[in-house]
Formats: sequence, structure tokens, C-alpha cells
Amino acid sequence: MINIMLSHKSIRAFKNDDIPDELLQKILLGGTRASTTGNIQAYSIIVTSEKEQKNKLWQAHFKQSMVLEAPLHLTFCADFNRFSEWCKVRKAEPGYDNFLSFFTAAIDALLVSQNIVLAAEAEGLGICYLGTATYNAHLLIEILELPKLVVPVASIVLGYPAENPGLTDRLPLEGVVHTEKYKNYVSADIDRIYAEKENLEQTRELLKINQKETLAQIFAEKRYPKNDNQFFSLRYLKTIADQGFMHNE
Amino acid sequence: MINIMLSHKSIRAFKNDDIPDELLQKILLGGTRASTTGNIQAYSIIVTSEKEQKNKLWQAHFKQSMVLEAPLHLTFCADFNRFSEWCKVRKAEPGYDNFLSFFTAAIDALLVSQNIVLAAEAEGLGICYLGTATYNAHLLIEILELPKLVVPVASIVLGYPAENPGLTDRLPLEGVVHTEKYKNYVSADIDRIYAEKENLEQTRELLKINQKETLAQIFAEKRYPKNDNQFFSLRYLKTIADQGFMHNE
Repeated sequence: MINIMLSHKSIRAFKNDDIPDELLQKILLGGTRASTTGNIQAYSIIVTSEKEQKNKLWQAHFKQSMVLEAPLHLTFCADFNRFSEWCKVRKAEPGYDNFLSFFTAAIDALLVSQNIVLAAEAEGLGICYLGTATYNAHLLIEILELPKLVVPVASIVLGYPAENPGLTDRLPLEGVVHTEKYKNYVSADIDRIYAEKENLEQTRELLKINQKETLAQIFAEKRYPKNDNQFFSLRYLKTIADQGFMHNE
Repeated sequence: MINIMLSHKSIRAFKNDDIPDELLQKILLGGTRASTTGNIQAYSIIVTSEKEQKNKLWQAHFKQSMVLEAPLHLTFCADFNRFSEWCKVRKAEPGYDNFLSFFTAAIDALLVSQNIVLAAEAEGLGICYLGTATYNAHLLIEILELPKLVVPVASIVLGYPAENPGLTDRLPLEGVVHTEKYKNYVSADIDRIYAEKENLEQTRELLKINQKETLAQIFAEKRYPKNDNQFFSLRYLKTIADQGFMHNE
């Protein structure tokens, strides 16, 4: 199992082969055994394979080509709609239209997504998460016809890999693990923790292409700049509220 | 791999045996291979094993006995502190003090948590998630001395199982999976999807003990009532803001 994790890499190019329905069912069955708060399973998974729907999702996901190429697309949603419907037809008053319920449901959906990713990889499939699921959640809601109390939190594409990229780097464990208490980072820690990433051949190339002095500048000024983060913050918060999850008092 | 998922159950009673450090390192190494936005790894994992710290965590987690019993306790945090510190010492202006960055970091932390859970289970350990991590995040921040831009999103206890409970029920796949578009639930769907759960022997006992007519009433009125959800919603939102993640414009 750990070997499958250790060889994980995101796959962005896929063969034409469809994923047999039986295999998908097996992966979904394994995935949905993930832990969930109170065994409520406050999530939904939308499976997309039709060309027209995939085309719409491709546009919402900033036209990343892997969305069109992959035979399957899964959208993981925080979902308190089903549970609330259950309450209503069982003479109970649901109280899940608030931020805690949204976040609890998001946790459920994200744990299931990672279970499904590992199940898929164990079966020889490749996957890639799409960070754009939260950026354009309001478009996904329209395309997938999500009712109130359902909000997308993550999307993956999956299929049979048509590429075999190398492993990407990770920070050393001391960079992300703390013992007993959080030990904040002084400049020497940062130097040590980021040394491998900063000295990659790929980093040198990025600096040249982007004409920047440091890799951190490429992240903070080009890839994930403050203005974009603020714009998408307001939009995602609005989406969460529009879907009915902000009745906190 | 899928077999390990299919046999997953939460473990709440643990043997006295410590987890060898070498095994923990192996699990953490496998776990931290999980996908992460832009390979930023915007999370931290706090490992607790000292008695005094565990005692404080036990109180914050509503005195659930498994917190004292388990040899190890992991707190998974959304963390943009380290990345921002990196930016600062590398002449870049970090822009990660907003809600989107918090949520992105939460996704990173939750995917890693589930990877670690599966790695631990593959190595014969048992785990249990603690839903209370979001309820009392402000207390965890104090106990673990988390700086700004670090917020707990999930906690697990782990150790060698001292119990072997049966599998818990799950909704049928048709209850959580949608094809192409979300298909909302009519009353007959709810009856079918919840039939197994409602007909469990355990459910009958719960109804008797709680003197309720339906299982949904036990959830909505006793276990996860609206008042509690609202209270914890406001508190978690305040914690997210207090930790500096609400500068959205």
C-alpha cells in the first residue's frame, strides 16, 4: 500500500481506453468506506463521462486539456441536501445550513476523494486533482445542476496513463512535521527545508523563463498572486452562502 | 489496497504498545506523497505522544477516552505560515491571508490525513478521526502553540487495536453517486437509500434508548442539533479569522 503512495504522481495525459464500469464500481465501493462524521456521509460524487458535459467542465476548469482527454471526471461535493431531505421525510428538523456543516461535509468529501484516488491508482489508473474546483464552483453548480446545500470541493480526472512522469519533490519530513508543539521557522530552517526544491534543475529553468530571482516570487507573483486569491476567496464564500450554508445564527 | 479500505473501521480502544519511531516515519513519508496544490504542501502535522500534552488535548476533544489511550495523536493543520515565511526570506510578498488560501490548505491537510490513515492501517495500526478538531480548534491552537496562518482541520488517534468491531454500514452507492448531473431525491429514493441503516438492530436499540420515533430525529435533535452547529460555526469562523485567514479584500 505504502509503495503505491510512494510512487504517486499526477497524470495529465491519458489513453483513449474507457474505464470499465465494473472497475469504477469497485473503486467507488472501496472509496466510500472512508471515515465520515457520525457515519452521515455528507458528500456526493458526480461522475462525468459524456462528451457534452465534459466539454462544459473543461471550460469551467480553465480549459485544461486533461479534462477533455480523461475518460472520467469526478466532482466531489460537500452535500447536506440528501441528509436534510432524509430528516424532512422522517419528521426531524434539519439544522445543517451553516458553515460548520459545510466544513464537516467538505471533510467527508475530501477523505472520500483521497480514498478513491488511492483505489484507482492501485488498479493501474492515473489521476490528477483540479485545483480549479473551488475557483469556479459556481459554474460547476450550474453544469452539474447541484441543489442548495451541495458545494463542489474537489475534482479529479482519471484514466489509463499515457505518460510516466518522474516523481515530484516533497519537502523533507522535518519541514511539515512538528513534535508536541509547533516550532516556528527561522531563516536557517527555511534555507534547509527548501534547499532541495530550490536546487532542482526544473527550478533553474523556471527562473530563467519567468525572469525572476527566486522560486517564491514565481509562486507569489505569477502562479498564486494575492489579487487572484482574494478574488476567488470572495467568490467561493459567496457560492457557499448562495448554496445556503451561511445561516450561522 | 482496496481490501484494506473495505475492512476499514474506526478503532477506539488501543493496546499499551508504543508505535516504533521507524514505523511512524515510514507512514509519514508515504502519507506526504499525497497530491497538494501547486506542490506547496500547505499543511503541518503535529505529533503528540507526551502525557501532559495528550492530557490537554483530551480535554479539548471533549474528554474522549481514546485520546488518552492511544499512544499517538496527530493534528492536521491548514498551514500557510511556512510558505509565507519562505516568501518573506526570498524577497516575495505572500498573499495567503485569505479564505481561499485557508480552504486550499485545508484540502492539502485532509488529503494527507487520509493517506496517512491508509498507510497506518496497511501497517496493522488502527485509527479514529476526532470530529472535535473543528469544534475546539481555538483550544488546539493554544495547546499546540500554532502561529497565525495555521488552523487545525482534523485530528486522529492511532495505535495497535485492542478491539475488533464489525464494519459499520454505508449508504448504497446509488445514494452518494450521480451520473452526469445531480439527481435530487424524492421520498421513495430516501426510503430505499436509508432502508439498510434504518433497519439495523443497532438503530432499533438507539430509538428505544433515546425514546425517538426516527433515527433522523436522533441525529437532528440529539447528536448534531442546529444550535450546536450554529454555535460551532461562529466559533470556527472566528478562529479562521483570528488566525489571519479572512483578509479577502
